[in-house]
Amino acid sequence: MPAPRVHVPAEDLRLIASRALAAAGLSDEHAATVADAFVWANLHGVDSHGISRLPRYLELLESGEANARPKLETTRVRAAALVIDADQAPGPVALSYAMREAIELARHAGVAWATVRGTVHTGAIGYYTTLASAQGLAGIGIVAGVPNMAYHGARGAAVATSPLSIALPASKHPDFVLDMATATIALGKIAQYKARGESLPAGSALTADGEPTTDAAEAKIPLPAAGAKGSGMSLAFELLASGLAGNPIVAEYHDGTPDGRRHRQNATLIAVDVAAFLPIEEFTQIVDRTIDAVTALPPAGDNPVLVPGGRSATVARKREQDGIPLPARVWESVTEAAARYGVTSPEPVASS
Amino acid sequence: MPAPRVHVPAEDLRLIASRALAAAGLSDEHAATVADAFVWANLHGVDSHGISRLPRYLELLESGEANARPKLETTRVRAAALVIDADQAPGPVALSYAMREAIELARHAGVAWATVRGTVHTGAIGYYTTLASAQGLAGIGIVAGVPNMAYHGARGAAVATSPLSIALPASKHPDFVLDMATATIALGKIAQYKARGESLPAGSALTADGEPTTDAAEAKIPLPAAGAKGSGMSLAFELLASGLAGNPIVAEYHDGTPDGRRHRQNATLIAVDVAAFLPIEEFTQIVDRTIDAVTALPPAGDNPVLVPGGRSATVARKREQDGIPLPARVWESVTEAAARYGVTSPEPVASS
Repeated sequence: MPAPRVHVPAEDLRLIASRALAAAGLSDEHAATVADAFVWANLHGVDSHGISRLPRYLELLESGEANARPKLETTRVRAAALVIDADQAPGPVALSYAMREAIELARHAGVAWATVRGTVHTGAIGYYTTLASAQGLAGIGIVAGVPNMAYHGARGAAVATSPLSIALPASKHPDFVLDMATATIALGKIAQYKARGESLPAGSALTADGEPTTDAAEAKIPLPAAGAKGSGMSLAFELLASGLAGNPIVAEYHDGTPDGRRHRQNATLIAVDVAAFLPIEEFTQIVDRTIDAVTALPPAGDNPVLVPGGRSATVARKREQDGIPLPARVWESVTEAAARYGVTSPEPVASS
Repeated sequence: MPAPRVHVPAEDLRLIASRALAAAGLSDEHAATVADAFVWANLHGVDSHGISRLPRYLELLESGEANARPKLETTRVRAAALVIDADQAPGPVALSYAMREAIELARHAGVAWATVRGTVHTGAIGYYTTLASAQGLAGIGIVAGVPNMAYHGARGAAVATSPLSIALPASKHPDFVLDMATATIALGKIAQYKARGESLPAGSALTADGEPTTDAAEAKIPLPAAGAKGSGMSLAFELLASGLAGNPIVAEYHDGTPDGRRHRQNATLIAVDVAAFLPIEEFTQIVDRTIDAVTALPPAGDNPVLVPGGRSATVARKREQDGIPLPARVWESVTEAAARYGVTSPEPVASS
């Protein structure tokens, strides 16, 4: 029997989240940004980074691990390079700001590279790269964080499940949006297997002791995608994002410094002004043609061939109409957390 | 019994290749560049892109598929963006030029993005990214080419094994050099399994008809690394490199246009001036510390933990001293091809 679910309109989730976050100390503008990032993730089917995170964000703000009143400092390092000191701002606040700055700079320089130093919980990285693609630019993003993934050939948590996203504008199709972790399986997916009482696919995770397991309840450390390739990419992203930010995470973690295990993240966002290279219509037509060609390929099994961003765009259209399906216990934890900040929630439509 | 091998000093290979390529029509400078790219690949253990390619390059120059006297045209699109029309120059000629231009631009703008349009056989992409890391910049490269890899969920060759390379300067350690195809297994590796009469690991390739196989003799189409992730990255690289170059390859291939199957490649190279972000010594110290931390992790098996670029640097030191080991039949094909251009080769040291 599937767990009971409710459907909540996206707009309701946005209001609940933004009001609770504002009550927890964020400015109205920052609260709206974080709420929008949650709702974007839910709309696009990335539920692990959606509204279910609200209670945890409120905790982070309460404890001061996330800074409710950050002073974002931008240094324009060069014509096409920015560093943004996030001052422990919640990820959506720091990274949305960084991508907007990068877009503006890229419109002049053709390309802009924004390094974000010291943010907290970046969430669904596709949210930031699609800020660029929605405006006709290519958006690229990587994030570095505290180790929670195995490194190829080593035992235990060694590097982070650092994601890569590449978003490109299309015309008749939804934007192309690659948004992938460097892990074989996301931590959120392991939790879903556990909730369903199912075994994990072999080769996807280790126990806390570093032993291979398919028991979702025992699995704590995802393995890197494609072995040395996934962990090599994760390490490269750490060095690019944390190295250029002058804020190493992986080295501090393993060296056991006082800050080593404190939650923090660095990121790099790149905006590329397509119109600097060729007329935007010519580019989006190439994207459309390529998507047409790939999705028309004979499928290897029973399922149609998908391109990155295609399925999530379909999910988003459906969820805009039908509301966002949430497990009842997630909805409960969200409304309880919001209620603690004096925010009341509407009665949602129950469903299964 | 292993196939008989010879050892040839790197300098001999460089001379043979540069003389033969110059005799085939390349300028002395371009011939030296291509030869250097071959020898770099051999020194670093990427033998599939080394001197063994000389006969094929000579053929490409003979047939005119590669242009021996290319007119490289650079358009500076914006302060941090370049487009280089390669005029069908061999990859090492076009991409070395592009990375040098990107490095120069990045020293002013902080970052530079070079799109290369219409080159031929780019070879080992780490050669270009390490041009940047050797000068204290970060180098990033991607290449797009004619489909030779499966796309997740589809039958047959659909996208290319498009590689990603990220090279970063270190101080006491060799530079960090990620250089990976988006395929589970390289075509060159399949050939090595075939030569040894060994079976492929399950899940690494398809037959020409699109059926899964572990028979190296039947395997023609590598599968993407980590399924949808590898093919999603490959497609993203096609759209970024070929899309911004206005020179689509995947769409033309599947649309069956006259040019669809003609060998050609596009690329994107990015140079990031580390010194724009922080003192270079601070960055290379972070890279060193992080490499120290990762290589000190307890290994999962009997082998030490490696970081990208570590093993190939060790191989390069050994091969600089001992010469480059080549299967006798590779050496024979190289010397025969060179002899056709009036270039004589020294007698190498036979070994096994």
